[in-house]
Amino acid sequence: MKAAIFKGKGAIELGERPDPTIKEPTDAVVRVVRSCVCGSDLWYYRGESDYPVGSPIGHEFLGVVEHVGESVQNIAKGDLVIAPFFYSDGTCPHCRAGITSACVAGGVWGVNGIDGGQGEAVRVPLADGTLVKIPGSGHSDETFASLLTLSDVMCTGHHAAVSAGVKKGDTVAVVGDGAVGLCAIIAAKRLGAERIIVLSRNPTRQELARASGATDILASRGEEANEAVLSLTDRVGVDAALECVGTNEAMQTALAIARPGSIVGYVGVPHGVEIPVPTLFYRNVGAHGGPAPARAYIPELLDDVLEGRINPGRVFDFTTDLGGIAQAYAAMDERRAIKSLVKVGTV
Amino acid sequence: MKAAIFKGKGAIELGERPDPTIKEPTDAVVRVVRSCVCGSDLWYYRGESDYPVGSPIGHEFLGVVEHVGESVQNIAKGDLVIAPFFYSDGTCPHCRAGITSACVAGGVWGVNGIDGGQGEAVRVPLADGTLVKIPGSGHSDETFASLLTLSDVMCTGHHAAVSAGVKKGDTVAVVGDGAVGLCAIIAAKRLGAERIIVLSRNPTRQELARASGATDILASRGEEANEAVLSLTDRVGVDAALECVGTNEAMQTALAIARPGSIVGYVGVPHGVEIPVPTLFYRNVGAHGGPAPARAYIPELLDDVLEGRINPGRVFDFTTDLGGIAQAYAAMDERRAIKSLVKVGTV
Repeated sequence: MKAAIFKGKGAIELGERPDPTIKEPTDAVVRVVRSCVCGSDLWYYRGESDYPVGSPIGHEFLGVVEHVGESVQNIAKGDLVIAPFFYSDGTCPHCRAGITSACVAGGVWGVNGIDGGQGEAVRVPLADGTLVKIPGSGHSDETFASLLTLSDVMCTGHHAAVSAGVKKGDTVAVVGDGAVGLCAIIAAKRLGAERIIVLSRNPTRQELARASGATDILASRGEEANEAVLSLTDRVGVDAALECVGTNEAMQTALAIARPGSIVGYVGVPHGVEIPVPTLFYRNVGAHGGPAPARAYIPELLDDVLEGRINPGRVFDFTTDLGGIAQAYAAMDERRAIKSLVKVGTV
Repeated sequence: MKAAIFKGKGAIELGERPDPTIKEPTDAVVRVVRSCVCGSDLWYYRGESDYPVGSPIGHEFLGVVEHVGESVQNIAKGDLVIAPFFYSDGTCPHCRAGITSACVAGGVWGVNGIDGGQGEAVRVPLADGTLVKIPGSGHSDETFASLLTLSDVMCTGHHAAVSAGVKKGDTVAVVGDGAVGLCAIIAAKRLGAERIIVLSRNPTRQELARASGATDILASRGEEANEAVLSLTDRVGVDAALECVGTNEAMQTALAIARPGSIVGYVGVPHGVEIPVPTLFYRNVGAHGGPAPARAYIPELLDDVLEGRINPGRVFDFTTDLGGIAQAYAAMDERRAIKSLVKVGTV
């Protein structure tokens, strides 16, 4: 089968990989219909984090089940399914507590002999715990795009909001106007936030932010952004600050604009982020976040996508096929695209 | 009047200070009945934090109102009152949100011309917002001791538990067997924790911990303590870890034993504490805490003290009068006492 292969900094190529087969009775083989590129894939692409050269890559996909192992019970051949970015057994204490991204038997796609999501097919370990069946049929391209975001980016934005404890009537600030930030806006609105302040300097992203639920857009950064948010909130700060970038600048902004007693929800994979403990302590501001337990979040978000109440698929503004995988990365790397969708197959 | 004066490292002396009088219409003057020494006073006493030499000191007291300014409405001459360790107006956005320790008009005792709590009397700014009237009369010495803990230490232990989100049925770990840790045990039990694991190597404190609600005592530290807690919890970790010391070792232990998805509640004034962001992130463990909003917590805890449902006054194991203030510090500094009570006057 064909699959994207990481060839080193700045080099993603379409290569050949063995067709996946059932290895464990708990496996499923999924033929990929849609995949996409994540902001975290770019850390590898840009050489800012290590990734094994020659490995498959990609961790967001949905597709059709082709084969199931003999002990798989919840999923059957022919099912349309979403795979979260971390596979999990659904039965360990962390899974049962809803933190599927800490599953003791779980793991990530693309490494340690596991297929990547940016390819024609994937062997899915722990299929019963991992995959979520998508009900219905004949979904539109728009619906497929939104369903695909449940693999990672929409659940990640949701995790920022959940970790920060966003509740009805809150004033929320979203730091970051990338795909995760845009999904955090959708999540905050969905959880009842009344006012959503977004830091964005890019006109296209500002427009998407407004369409997703942002009520105030601030084009400033650093100290100026802090001052602008404090000024908008009668110098109180926001009820919840959502850090959706992963840089130290974004974290410092989030910590500075969070009101005393609140929690910064952070989901950007941290690169050089520092948490200044005395500042955090004396302001009574907390920090909570991490890799989203996407598997636990998918069921509740799935209904909202299928009913059209949320449209996170809007984050995709570049579409290609597997043959265009290098362009999918380049478009995001060069900031020509917010997020690249890869049409791999048909239902 | 007589009041404790900070004379430099290792030197607390009883000195003379002007009798406090009403300066602002919002002031009250309180004649102190009980005061005590805080673990955070020891940071100054040991020269580990700066404190202005020649200043009054102490921030925990209860007493009888002697005078009130003309705009004071909630408090009257003759009232028995508790003062939280931070004065606050009760009307700013942070006070209204329950984070009185971030009051925009508030402040601490002992510095900037404000009297200390370890003295015969205190001018209390913002008396209506700050003081809490204690109902009833003829309280026993034991009740007075427990009431006094509401100034700081019991509210601080409660803040650790609240910040960590302790709820019914939880397994909680308390790192620290000092007065704050013991109060955190009481708070966790009060909030419904089912199992309370306490790290303590001191037999007297172990006994107090058990009497306060601890179900498991571990005498280990560092890596060994982490392993012991994981072993007690089927390698899951605890639902809430409460860091009640303020050292980096205590924080690292708390972060290591907190289960994924949980929040470490930390209330020890941080000295050299570092939060390793990648570890925090990949384990989905949060950190939240700070100076307790004691004023906001006192009313709910007051009832439990008066009804005898909680007995945080047990943390006092050394009692003296103002003349013995130097001994009160020395006993705690030399770890001969958990916490020193100072009987200043009578009702």
